[in-house]
Amino acid sequence: MKPYLKEHEWSIIEEGFNPENHEISESVFSLGNGHMGQRANFEETYTGSSLQGSYMAGVYYPDKTRVGWWKNGYPENFAKVLNSINWIGLQIVIDGEDLDLNKAVVSDFVRELNMKEGNLTRSFEAELREGKRIRVQATRFVSIVDKEIGAIKYDITPLNFDGTLQVTSYLDGDVRNQDANYDEKFWDPIDSSLSKDRASLSVKTKKLNFQFCSTIETQIFKADKQLDVEGIGIEEIKYAGLTYKAPLVKNEKTTIYKYAANVTNRDHDENQLEIISGKELDKAVAKGFKQLKKEQASAWKEKWLNSDIVIEGDVAAQQGIRFNIYQLNQTYSGEDARLNIGPKGFTGEKYGGSTYWDTEAYCLPFYLATAEERISRNLLIYRYNHLEKAKENARKLGFEKGALYPMVTMNGEESHNEWEITFEEIHRNGAIAYGIYNYVNYTGDKAYLGEYGVEVLVEISRFWEERVNYVPQKDVYMMLGVTGPNEYENNVHNNWYTNRIASWTLEYTLYVLDYLKDSDNKLYQQWIDKLKLNEKEMKKWLDIIDKMYYPEDKKLGVILQQDNFLDKEILPVADLDSKHLPLNQNWSWDRILRSCFIKQADVLQGLYFLNHEFDIETKKRNFDFYEPMTVHESSLSPCVHAILACELGYKDKAYDMYLRTARLDLDNYNNDTEDGCHTTSMAGTWMSVVQGFGGMKITNDQFVLNPFIPSQWTSFSFKVLFRGARLMIRVDQEEVTVTNESALSLDVVIHGEKILLKGNKAITVTH
Amino acid sequence: MKPYLKEHEWSIIEEGFNPENHEISESVFSLGNGHMGQRANFEETYTGSSLQGSYMAGVYYPDKTRVGWWKNGYPENFAKVLNSINWIGLQIVIDGEDLDLNKAVVSDFVRELNMKEGNLTRSFEAELREGKRIRVQATRFVSIVDKEIGAIKYDITPLNFDGTLQVTSYLDGDVRNQDANYDEKFWDPIDSSLSKDRASLSVKTKKLNFQFCSTIETQIFKADKQLDVEGIGIEEIKYAGLTYKAPLVKNEKTTIYKYAANVTNRDHDENQLEIISGKELDKAVAKGFKQLKKEQASAWKEKWLNSDIVIEGDVAAQQGIRFNIYQLNQTYSGEDARLNIGPKGFTGEKYGGSTYWDTEAYCLPFYLATAEERISRNLLIYRYNHLEKAKENARKLGFEKGALYPMVTMNGEESHNEWEITFEEIHRNGAIAYGIYNYVNYTGDKAYLGEYGVEVLVEISRFWEERVNYVPQKDVYMMLGVTGPNEYENNVHNNWYTNRIASWTLEYTLYVLDYLKDSDNKLYQQWIDKLKLNEKEMKKWLDIIDKMYYPEDKKLGVILQQDNFLDKEILPVADLDSKHLPLNQNWSWDRILRSCFIKQADVLQGLYFLNHEFDIETKKRNFDFYEPMTVHESSLSPCVHAILACELGYKDKAYDMYLRTARLDLDNYNNDTEDGCHTTSMAGTWMSVVQGFGGMKITNDQFVLNPFIPSQWTSFSFKVLFRGARLMIRVDQEEVTVTNESALSLDVVIHGEKILLKGNKAITVTH
Repeated sequence: MKPYLKEHEWSIIEEGFNPENHEISESVFSLGNGHMGQRANFEETYTGSSLQGSYMAGVYYPDKTRVGWWKNGYPENFAKVLNSINWIGLQIVIDGEDLDLNKAVVSDFVRELNMKEGNLTRSFEAELREGKRIRVQATRFVSIVDKEIGAIKYDITPLNFDGTLQVTSYLDGDVRNQDANYDEKFWDPIDSSLSKDRASLSVKTKKLNFQFCSTIETQIFKADKQLDVEGIGIEEIKYAGLTYKAPLVKNEKTTIYKYAANVTNRDHDENQLEIISGKELDKAVAKGFKQLKKEQASAWKEKWLNSDIVIEGDVAAQQGIRFNIYQLNQTYSGEDARLNIGPKGFTGEKYGGSTYWDTEAYCLPFYLATAEERISRNLLIYRYNHLEKAKENARKLGFEKGALYPMVTMNGEESHNEWEITFEEIHRNGAIAYGIYNYVNYTGDKAYLGEYGVEVLVEISRFWEERVNYVPQKDVYMMLGVTGPNEYENNVHNNWYTNRIASWTLEYTLYVLDYLKDSDNKLYQQWIDKLKLNEKEMKKWLDIIDKMYYPEDKKLGVILQQDNFLDKEILPVADLDSKHLPLNQNWSWDRILRSCFIKQADVLQGLYFLNHEFDIETKKRNFDFYEPMTVHESSLSPCVHAILACELGYKDKAYDMYLRTARLDLDNYNNDTEDGCHTTSMAGTWMSVVQGFGGMKITNDQFVLNPFIPSQWTSFSFKVLFRGARLMIRVDQEEVTVTNESALSLDVVIHGEKILLKGNKAITVTH
Repeated sequence: MKPYLKEHEWSIIEEGFNPENHEISESVFSLGNGHMGQRANFEETYTGSSLQGSYMAGVYYPDKTRVGWWKNGYPENFAKVLNSINWIGLQIVIDGEDLDLNKAVVSDFVRELNMKEGNLTRSFEAELREGKRIRVQATRFVSIVDKEIGAIKYDITPLNFDGTLQVTSYLDGDVRNQDANYDEKFWDPIDSSLSKDRASLSVKTKKLNFQFCSTIETQIFKADKQLDVEGIGIEEIKYAGLTYKAPLVKNEKTTIYKYAANVTNRDHDENQLEIISGKELDKAVAKGFKQLKKEQASAWKEKWLNSDIVIEGDVAAQQGIRFNIYQLNQTYSGEDARLNIGPKGFTGEKYGGSTYWDTEAYCLPFYLATAEERISRNLLIYRYNHLEKAKENARKLGFEKGALYPMVTMNGEESHNEWEITFEEIHRNGAIAYGIYNYVNYTGDKAYLGEYGVEVLVEISRFWEERVNYVPQKDVYMMLGVTGPNEYENNVHNNWYTNRIASWTLEYTLYVLDYLKDSDNKLYQQWIDKLKLNEKEMKKWLDIIDKMYYPEDKKLGVILQQDNFLDKEILPVADLDSKHLPLNQNWSWDRILRSCFIKQADVLQGLYFLNHEFDIETKKRNFDFYEPMTVHESSLSPCVHAILACELGYKDKAYDMYLRTARLDLDNYNNDTEDGCHTTSMAGTWMSVVQGFGGMKITNDQFVLNPFIPSQWTSFSFKVLFRGARLMIRVDQEEVTVTNESALSLDVVIHGEKILLKGNKAITVTH
């Protein structure tokens, strides 16, 4: 796939219509506001290849699991994000001919995602039958101010004829998920209603009773004057629409406005959905398109104020990083602790749109640094709310105590159904504990520990306690049969990362308990009682910490990814003929498993998370050993390597790693963007810049920077929120400047030097 | 499930009708003749639970694979045995009421599988509406003389009324497989035809164009006189039948004869199928039911002459072992090298009815000892014929040379789709090599090696050569990422059994090459040329043999099942609370994997196969170590343990192991007989008696016996064919007698003593 998008600092632009790229563009140009989102499907009829997708956050479907061979413990269902009512639909019929870019001759096609202001525009000329030519200009957005509102402005100008326009503005709930396991449709009808200019459609899911009501109002304007045309209603099962007719006059623009209010029983009384969506719609219509669009632009301006990264001297890089930040902000707004970040956001269905460890491991740092504390706190509370389900999950797998969070989930229940992942990739439990540490370390919000954190930590620790086994003849604790972060190994023994993160969890849990004991003994006692924690249990944890087995090779001076790793044929990826790459498309699974090649950071993930525990030489030896064997066939891989490479001074490697995900979707690097964007990996790219090139860390409650700048760039700057302050960090080839955009004074450590940075001041340090 | 079958030496008998047991009985009372077979479905309508199944050997369907998560190298299709035209159907309508044992009041129900003569009878009284009572007696068989012929005699006697009988004798091709992955039907119609007393139906499979034609003739008799009733035809899509009417007179028997000729395009020109089935039917009808049944009985007498086992003093054991021998003889007759032995024979659909390593590891010995040499030779040729596909399979998994036979197959292509089995359970390749060794060792047919064997051996050896990897720092060859016979471990390194059978294959292949070189240098050179074998390759094999790594624990003096086995928590099954058993129903997969518990013989499988390589102390230490950890959750497990226990003098353990499979299906021991019988494990039970209690081996071309008799039995005797001789071995508590039922003299070694046994003589040795 050749990159086809135009480079631009603030917009994603596609010029010329190429149907082959359409599904990729549908992903890339997606819109979202945390509450709902949609792929960039066309409003009008399109009979070419397209993946239709319109999603409501938190509305999911437990689809019956499909497996070849059932194993005990598999979940009955795989919860998946649900394609919902298509509320953008506008069937445009001109002189009896359905406008369809798959059939018309299209020219001057331009599509633009305006990231600065948060809207999508599209313009083109289409030649219809008999040479009739029209010009269309469409703009739409989903509002980040009024979360339930979406709006469309659709202009049509006939260029060489007079004729008749027939517009059917509709709601279509008879949609399907492309990834349905048994090709079922997931929605049942509830009701529909029509009035002169409004249509309303209510549907509910076949399981779990999610109810969704969309109400639309359509207006037709000519030269800023609304036409008084009465819609003719069409009601079918799971479909409601209104058809309008208007004359078309050569070179005269006709504008269709479509407003939609999309509400669900997640947020409202289910008996009131139609009424509420009507009221929301009233408000939106009263504001009007222009005003809504203006509010949208100014709300996005606010977002950028806290989260923008500016790269000078490299437009492609600038566009790439802004696209990532934009998509992250479209996906998760953090106001609803029931929501989380699906691997594709609102851009596609793949991977079920559920929550993975990606959230804690890769996404949390972005939200920590670019949004208010409560946003990332909500990400943590999401897991707290799933604790009971995580305990049930552990019981289901035969554990007598503790909690095992699921690998993939929507509602706290496991959705994944490969034993090597579901049952074995338990290191995710460690990432959830680490997320708590990371949050408290960044925000200083220790109150979280006593309020929620300690309970999650204790239950995860209990799981680890039961999951390890003591090997008497070696006097160590081991962890058998796991899959580490490197999913190109299954059922290994003593994956170092898993052993370490497990033991670390025990350490941190004991530390948190000590902290509570010292700081609020009453609260501590309450937890001890509630959790029935006893001395024996905590002693056992100390014993495990003391005797945990960590595979290593003393001769090479490296940590071993797992037992017997060196029995493999060890060779670098560079020695493979490129015809073998990517391995996951060219090798059978057993060949991948037997090989030394690594999908994503595993030992190095541990060195990244627990960075402070290791000296630079250890990191270097392990990086030098493992990175050359790493194929980075997860989009979550390069970022961790980029950050470590920065720390080790491997500048070229760092930049190289950064490039692998910086424009992953814009350049369709993995040839799979048509399925949706790699939303969680976008957060990883953000980390590459801020934690990698910026060298940002929080150490002992201090804001630390060790920046360097790739030689390809003139400068880069990023914004972060830190404990009430907003800092803007600008790095160029000579120096680094930190500007305090708040009134708060704070110490910052730049290139190892601690400096007091006063409110609304800047300091500059030369490299 | 309570055992409900009556003990009897020669028959399986069910008295009283219990619908709950019906599907189990449908499996147990199955009929087959190697060419076709069927579950014991009722002829008349039955609306209760039933698994309808009628199968033609070698007619299969490549059903589209169903998986949760696709992996490279998975097969597109899973070939499965195909439920085919139901040719037994007789709809019995009495005074307008459909006879249906699910609705009638049933009494005096008796079902009997007569194993001595090879037929199934059923008799019952049924009370219909208004108190009308009838008596029914039905007999049917599939002929082992005329392989395409099945015949039914169905007697109806009204006991308390006069009335009208309406019989529809039909062929129903609109059948489905219960195990269809996507609930599709697999047959398309071709044609049907009807005459006065015959109906014919032809169908073909939706893929692969298997064509099947069944033609039936129906006759109605009263008091040995055929009625001249004309059938009224019914033709529907994939259905053809004829309806007859006859008066019913109180206490007067009406007999329906139904003959079916079932032919396929596997054996005949597909344009001639209807004609051929008509001709076959002519012959059968000419013989008549009585004669066909008589010939059937006498042919079964012949079978028993070669294969019977007599156990005195234990009717249940007698019945159990005969049932096993009977089912094996029904399943595979060995005349067609395109056929093999499905895990359920013709008794059900589960496991797809395909070929597993069961054939070489567990079934071959039975056919070697109880059937002519060509029968087991055909089992070997089956694999020879699949060699090209096995080479393709290896290529598909990325190997540059050699052959990897599939785990499950119908036509040589892999059908299995779990990576841990499909790609990793490669020890099957060793069993196929071992089958050649076993065959030649038993029969002395060394010509097979030069004709077919060497090519298979060389290609398997080449696979092993590529599959091992050299570990320079240890100067050994290892085999990473395999699943051994114990499928409760996946992706282990250096499974001892796999390493050993691989290395053994190389040894045996080199031995066979040497043998050919010495015995027929011209032929040897032809093979060297054809196979492009060179010195370097053979040297590499020697190096692998020399440096193969075998895990062991010197302190315990045991072989290790795999690397790191002792890092597990080691405990005997006896220490588990019984609520955990069977593990495969109570534990999640990862818990099973992490545990030490063993599904079936693994290290001990090696000690069984390569018995002569190990001294008795080694066998004892390993048996004592592994057997207590073995849960025997494969029906193929107990036999190997029984045989080794016999060798080690563990008499109680041996008998205990024997009992676990002796009546596996008759007593529905595993609660799954309704899916079909455990056909391949039946051969294992035979091995327990002959190789275990009988202690039969062929060592250095000599027939060796080391018998002992369980204290529960008075005597047992078995027959074997050995190199042209038929021997009857009788063992009682005092002595063993070997009777030579042939004219050939041969040496036999009994309890270590070599004795010349002359033709038609017997010798007796006291224990």
